Amino acid sequence: MRNKLKIIPLGGVGEIGKNMTVIEYGGDILIVDCGLIFPDEEMLGIDVVIPDMTYLEQNADKIRGMCITHGHEDHIGAIPYAMQKFRCPIYGTRFTNALIRHKLDEHHLNDVQVVDVAPKETVKLGCFKVEFIKTGHSIAGAVALAIQTPIGTVIHTGDFKIDLTPIDGEPIDINRFAYYGSKGVLALLSDSTNVEHTGFTQSEREIGKTFDRCFDKAQGRVIVASFASNVYRLQQVADVAIDHARVVCFQGRSMEQIVKIAQELGYMHIPPEKIVRVEHLKNIPPHMVCVMTTGSQGEPMSGLYRMANDTHKLNVGAGDTVIISASAIPGNERGVARVINSLYEKGAEVVYDRMADVHVSGHAFAGELRLMLALTKPKYFIPVHGEARHLKMHADLAKEQGVLPENTFIAKNGAVIELTSKSGVMNGTVPSGSVMVDGLIDVEDVVLKDRKVLSVDGLVAALMLLDAQSGRLLAPVEIYSRGFINMRDNESLINRASELVYEQAKRFESADKGEYAGIKNTVKSKLKSFLYNETGRTPMILPIVIEI
Amino acid sequence: MRNKLKIIPLGGVGEIGKNMTVIEYGGDILIVDCGLIFPDEEMLGIDVVIPDMTYLEQNADKIRGMCITHGHEDHIGAIPYAMQKFRCPIYGTRFTNALIRHKLDEHHLNDVQVVDVAPKETVKLGCFKVEFIKTGHSIAGAVALAIQTPIGTVIHTGDFKIDLTPIDGEPIDINRFAYYGSKGVLALLSDSTNVEHTGFTQSEREIGKTFDRCFDKAQGRVIVASFASNVYRLQQVADVAIDHARVVCFQGRSMEQIVKIAQELGYMHIPPEKIVRVEHLKNIPPHMVCVMTTGSQGEPMSGLYRMANDTHKLNVGAGDTVIISASAIPGNERGVARVINSLYEKGAEVVYDRMADVHVSGHAFAGELRLMLALTKPKYFIPVHGEARHLKMHADLAKEQGVLPENTFIAKNGAVIELTSKSGVMNGTVPSGSVMVDGLIDVEDVVLKDRKVLSVDGLVAALMLLDAQSGRLLAPVEIYSRGFINMRDNESLINRASELVYEQAKRFESADKGEYAGIKNTVKSKLKSFLYNETGRTPMILPIVIEI
Repeated sequence: MRNKLKIIPLGGVGEIGKNMTVIEYGGDILIVDCGLIFPDEEMLGIDVVIPDMTYLEQNADKIRGMCITHGHEDHIGAIPYAMQKFRCPIYGTRFTNALIRHKLDEHHLNDVQVVDVAPKETVKLGCFKVEFIKTGHSIAGAVALAIQTPIGTVIHTGDFKIDLTPIDGEPIDINRFAYYGSKGVLALLSDSTNVEHTGFTQSEREIGKTFDRCFDKAQGRVIVASFASNVYRLQQVADVAIDHARVVCFQGRSMEQIVKIAQELGYMHIPPEKIVRVEHLKNIPPHMVCVMTTGSQGEPMSGLYRMANDTHKLNVGAGDTVIISASAIPGNERGVARVINSLYEKGAEVVYDRMADVHVSGHAFAGELRLMLALTKPKYFIPVHGEARHLKMHADLAKEQGVLPENTFIAKNGAVIELTSKSGVMNGTVPSGSVMVDGLIDVEDVVLKDRKVLSVDGLVAALMLLDAQSGRLLAPVEIYSRGFINMRDNESLINRASELVYEQAKRFESADKGEYAGIKNTVKSKLKSFLYNETGRTPMILPIVIEI
Repeated sequence: MRNKLKIIPLGGVGEIGKNMTVIEYGGDILIVDCGLIFPDEEMLGIDVVIPDMTYLEQNADKIRGMCITHGHEDHIGAIPYAMQKFRCPIYGTRFTNALIRHKLDEHHLNDVQVVDVAPKETVKLGCFKVEFIKTGHSIAGAVALAIQTPIGTVIHTGDFKIDLTPIDGEPIDINRFAYYGSKGVLALLSDSTNVEHTGFTQSEREIGKTFDRCFDKAQGRVIVASFASNVYRLQQVADVAIDHARVVCFQGRSMEQIVKIAQELGYMHIPPEKIVRVEHLKNIPPHMVCVMTTGSQGEPMSGLYRMANDTHKLNVGAGDTVIISASAIPGNERGVARVINSLYEKGAEVVYDRMADVHVSGHAFAGELRLMLALTKPKYFIPVHGEARHLKMHADLAKEQGVLPENTFIAKNGAVIELTSKSGVMNGTVPSGSVMVDGLIDVEDVVLKDRKVLSVDGLVAALMLLDAQSGRLLAPVEIYSRGFINMRDNESLINRASELVYEQAKRFESADKGEYAGIKNTVKSKLKSFLYNETGRTPMILPIVIEI
């Protein structure tokens, strides 16, 4: 057991989301990130999905701390859930921590220790020394981690891109990666999100030109939708707006809140007199207004959605120019298209990613991933933050950059990667998986399966009232339904269903109690066939037998 | 009323799907296409969505015929539903009609008159003369329609692209469009699907080179997934496969059936000895096999999905090369990604549209749309087959090509466009909308809303048994639930819910019947709050009061 370093991804491999990695050596555990993933369309009624943290609960006494690479939900979203199960200090940059503290407040977790760490600083956690290295990403305060362990250095890139002309003027600190690469890197864990794209990402600064052109042309208001947390984008749009003699107004709860934090911490620099509250916009001519809002993913409660659907103070109309400065996250394509259509119907000009360069990705393309491999020259390579195809492609890329294929680990969540200074193997697994949170508690698969059936054809309940002694039916069978059919328009169908159940339920009379379950099942299947033949639908059947 | 031509889109404007257009003059109605659209993610349990055909039912005596531009579901899928409401002869090319006849057979509609029309032929329908003009699209037998009316010619392009080197060797008959353009076209209805893309589509033939390279490299089996109806693609892949000394095997019910039809009608030409049934593949070495299958959209019951998930005779594994020769239709992105991931996990090589040119669209890009406008020089222009943004962009494009803005109609389904030789206006509407079909019958909105609620947090029923005379509770309140929570693990919660309802239901005892509804509502809202506070969930509540 000694001299073995364990790297255990609890989330973020084989998927894009809920990133969480355990680094363990002897009696010390270090956690990297603690994110959530939003449910897919099969997970009916689920709010968020978080990693199974059983392994950490079982080893809570070993946990020395949690290092967070940046403040996106897929890296910090599960922290409140984790802090209800175990406690440890949390380390992040100032911006990341501001978002974490806000989240902890919302969950009334005010006694968690959250420690600010600046890039280039190192924290000591048990046997580990962790240097925070500035990177670039679509949020402020993103870092990679150089984790010095007793048997060598592990580098975790977090999410990153290599942008040499970022808006904050401080490019990714490639020299630190080179430094560790020269000294020798035991293992690299690197972001695989955009490995399908060849070449290099555009710099965030490049799209400034598109904004300039759009603002030049715009006659009325300009409304820009983007991710609330992309403060560089917000800063850039604000700069262009102010250059064009416009004031800026932020809309959407999350955006207003993040701008406030970013301005306070010095991550954004918009002159306060240029920021206007929505109530004051009515006194300002349209050509002097720029609105920045949430809703770039077409989310139904977001600012842009409401503006496009007449349920916002700032309804969009003819004369407005709307720029959607984002691309649709897989699964959101239809929602985004719907908002664009509504905006066109209102007569607005719309600019979106198919038409112009109004968005750049925050995740490295294949060229940048090669550069990271070339800088760090890792002995072992673990592609992370990707679905199966991304991990495989990233592994192929590492091979081309000189990593031995047998030293590359395409892991699944829960896999234990054991490294020594001489060898590396995947050795067993720890409990892992997806915990689905709906409301305040987890949901089990059986409940989800029921929801699926209910969602397709609804439910039909048949109530049979029996005399407890004789098993005789005391009343006609009552039929209830929800989500199956319009009862009022189908009275005859319902009556026939009731009669059918009544005929079947007569068998209770001559039966003894041991046969009741069987009769109930027969009722269920007869009713099911009847309804299917009549309607082509298969609702969930709930037979209720009441004995009096 | 006389001398007015009415063009009424019943489907296909403001949406991509369920295309259907009414052309009416005096006592004559001609219908162009009769398609369905697949439900979006909000339409729980719905099988298909078809246009509201009330207007046609009301004017059934005027209908002279239905002309079908091609055999895709969004152009023919609603024919069986239409033929249950009204009857008229159907005109299409041979391939289109073969698909329509198959569909009518499935619905036991064997007495519908289906008439084969070849390109360049003209049919007379009441006051209309309709010429079928060969076009190109991702299915065989696609045509545009030149509809000569008493006041001028209306051209409906159907879905088309301009491919000068198509696989069947017969390019789109641009000379006929030019002929009508020179004579004078009153109105053009043109496909807007791909107006967002500048330039011209690639020719279907171009991607043959990619297939060639993939087959050159492949060591084991090659499996190609594409749309079943794209017989040109199937022919092309088969040609490359045979060139590489492979036999071909078709998988998936729809693909096998379409290949059979296309071979019989002469739209495909694969030597029968090169087509092998799946049972015989086990005797053929992998490097001599090419499988063509359905499932390019990641559909759960399709051939490719089952091959990727170990539920097909031909399970995919290491050594196989899978080519996904399609792009994801909006809404299917996640499903397609899931299949690709599974294939990678099985160790297969996967080639898909992000990596190589393995697919070309069947819909004209902006350059081709301009060419169609330039050829036909219409006086009036009606962009069709597009969502709001596509119609607007296509209208802008027509303006640039010289159509007067006031002569362009961005319509909604049901809008009546009235043309004379001198003027054109939108004048009123006819009944229109979406009819949602689930099983054998329509679904109403109220049922769908219930399904939505059920899908999110399930259902809780509370059964109260009262003495009919006194209103006294005769038994403890029984709680039933489905899709809400695991009952077994939450016994205490269920017991407390039962007690809470019992307390509330005591009020029935002192109440008169008129107050029962109010008490029931109170039970409902108290139970709802209780469950929300305990679980954060809001299931549908079904209070059942039984009086004995």
